[in-house]
Amino acid sequence: MKIGGESYRSVWVNAEDGYAVHIFDQTKLPWSLDILRLETPQQVAEAIVTMQVRGAPLIGAVAAYGLALALRIDSATPAMERDAAMLAETRPTAINLRWAIERMLTRLRNTLPADRVRVAYEEAGAICDEDVAQNEAIGRHGVALIQQIAESKRARGSDEPVRILTHCNAGWIATVDWGTALAPIYMAHDQGTDLHVWVDETRPRNQGAALTAWELGSHGVGHTVVSDNAGGHLMQHGKVDMVIVGTDRVTRNGDVANKIGTYLKALAAHDNDVPFYVALPSTTIDWSVGDGLRDIPIEERSAREVTHIVGRDSDGKMAAVQVTPDGTDAANPAFDVTPARLVTGLLTERGVCDASREGLLALFPERNTGSTN
Amino acid sequence: MKIGGESYRSVWVNAEDGYAVHIFDQTKLPWSLDILRLETPQQVAEAIVTMQVRGAPLIGAVAAYGLALALRIDSATPAMERDAAMLAETRPTAINLRWAIERMLTRLRNTLPADRVRVAYEEAGAICDEDVAQNEAIGRHGVALIQQIAESKRARGSDEPVRILTHCNAGWIATVDWGTALAPIYMAHDQGTDLHVWVDETRPRNQGAALTAWELGSHGVGHTVVSDNAGGHLMQHGKVDMVIVGTDRVTRNGDVANKIGTYLKALAAHDNDVPFYVALPSTTIDWSVGDGLRDIPIEERSAREVTHIVGRDSDGKMAAVQVTPDGTDAANPAFDVTPARLVTGLLTERGVCDASREGLLALFPERNTGSTN
Repeated sequence: MKIGGESYRSVWVNAEDGYAVHIFDQTKLPWSLDILRLETPQQVAEAIVTMQVRGAPLIGAVAAYGLALALRIDSATPAMERDAAMLAETRPTAINLRWAIERMLTRLRNTLPADRVRVAYEEAGAICDEDVAQNEAIGRHGVALIQQIAESKRARGSDEPVRILTHCNAGWIATVDWGTALAPIYMAHDQGTDLHVWVDETRPRNQGAALTAWELGSHGVGHTVVSDNAGGHLMQHGKVDMVIVGTDRVTRNGDVANKIGTYLKALAAHDNDVPFYVALPSTTIDWSVGDGLRDIPIEERSAREVTHIVGRDSDGKMAAVQVTPDGTDAANPAFDVTPARLVTGLLTERGVCDASREGLLALFPERNTGSTN
Repeated sequence: MKIGGESYRSVWVNAEDGYAVHIFDQTKLPWSLDILRLETPQQVAEAIVTMQVRGAPLIGAVAAYGLALALRIDSATPAMERDAAMLAETRPTAINLRWAIERMLTRLRNTLPADRVRVAYEEAGAICDEDVAQNEAIGRHGVALIQQIAESKRARGSDEPVRILTHCNAGWIATVDWGTALAPIYMAHDQGTDLHVWVDETRPRNQGAALTAWELGSHGVGHTVVSDNAGGHLMQHGKVDMVIVGTDRVTRNGDVANKIGTYLKALAAHDNDVPFYVALPSTTIDWSVGDGLRDIPIEERSAREVTHIVGRDSDGKMAAVQVTPDGTDAANPAFDVTPARLVTGLLTERGVCDASREGLLALFPERNTGSTN
């Protein structure tokens, strides 16, 4: 997508710069557009852990490049396996990370060490290109959903925009390009559909207030930031036509792990008959897990993310302010699981399906192994 | 309650200081314990609007004293009615404010102007004393609920504390003393019940992170601050035994207006079979309103409360940081309405009742006017 008229992806390498891995430092957005140049797998791991790079699909893509960087240092199998494991453990909840590393290893284990660097860059590049294509397809399928709502509003005589609530950031900066939840929004906007986006602030790290608001503003999509507490009230008063969120892992039964607080919005959507869609490339599906509440590990992050809030101070500098009394304890689960029963539909690159085993297998019949657990 | 071993109420007057009205500046807590001395009804109105004084019961008490201050300047009827209307309009959602002003006027209209100052201080003092007594009674009834849960946990072989989630601040600083939601918690703690409180941060103004954490910490009650997004996840994982919140207005049908985000926690409690109690003195009941969603006015506050967060910077000074890109629009509804169907019980000074017309009339039979609307 474009920043100031220039097209970017969220991760890139190029020959002129010696195939280092470039990302935007997302902890600095929206205040500063810092490009990080990563040269080692340790730097990649650090960037993932500190959330300089974030978003389930993007983490997978960047970790894949991280393995390519590792192989430049040592392409022997023991080092490759060790560095792959190190990268895979940087964050526990998003499945795309492990999927990308596993895909890289599957190919690299069958590649001679001397060829591994070239093959790794090739495979990581393919992962990126496929992510972009999948997200574009998600966008196309999602546009149809938005158009249906726009038409039904017009049929009821409304001249209001389609109002879409989203939580966290599942935009282009969370993927290689387009985004997942935001892809349909960008496309519908580009096609002239009148849209307005309610952007959940997304405490504790404010990905909505900082990143989603920045993305939408940069692209010219109308939006309003609200505290995470406000979405239920907006839905009660008919001010939300649909919810679209991204996800870090979907189980084979359709349970959805996403940023903490997603479950609360799904409950409110259900209580107010607001359609609740989850957008995902199929790389986000964990076919090995059925019960999301029981079996998806939820990352617990630092208490400081709750007790201190980062923003821009009156001097224009990035600063943290403490919002709790000294010594206050805080808990910080980073994700929650929305049970499939609260999800109206899963929006994938192959189309929309029910959030259920049957729904997913209808779209991905190649995954039907006959097990019914 | 006590601060550093010394007993305070949240509002007081005394002869030595010429009967000015004293409050804590709640916008400075927990970082600084500033006492404000208010001498005019305009200063009182300003303190309410800027939330230097807040909490439905406390707003009513302070506004009552504000009318006493007004009468010292002009005790004639036209001035009294004008200043009463000015005070009543400072905030729209909490009903205690209008209740207190109406109670003052009922008495003062039947008082000769020459006697009004004395009578106004007397009546405002009575409102304060009754608030304290009502909250203490709420505490006693609430302790019984907490004890039941403690016993049932022990019977199941658990040695964990009773874990109570609360939203916003309905503590002693939100009332004249004791608090509403926190009164049972303080009393149960003082009686030796093992408790732990999950404190919702309560964006956008962080009353939980700042005020509730400060109150509980000052009193020695174990607590953990969480982002407003986390409560559903905690309930899904069995980490919350009950929810207790305060309220700004309860309708005669049991609908509950409270700080924005309360509805989301009520949905999660309902979805996870966690008891959800609302604590209130009967002054918070608006017998004139049935349908809370339709008829309770919801205050819309400044967008800046969402886009800028106040805390303590690294130099120890209070500072605001901007969390959204420049020019970002924000909406800031300050309250939402939790439908009665999601409320396990209303915890009043007369005991616990169902959140329903029948439940409320059983506790307050003098309100039975025969109307069934």
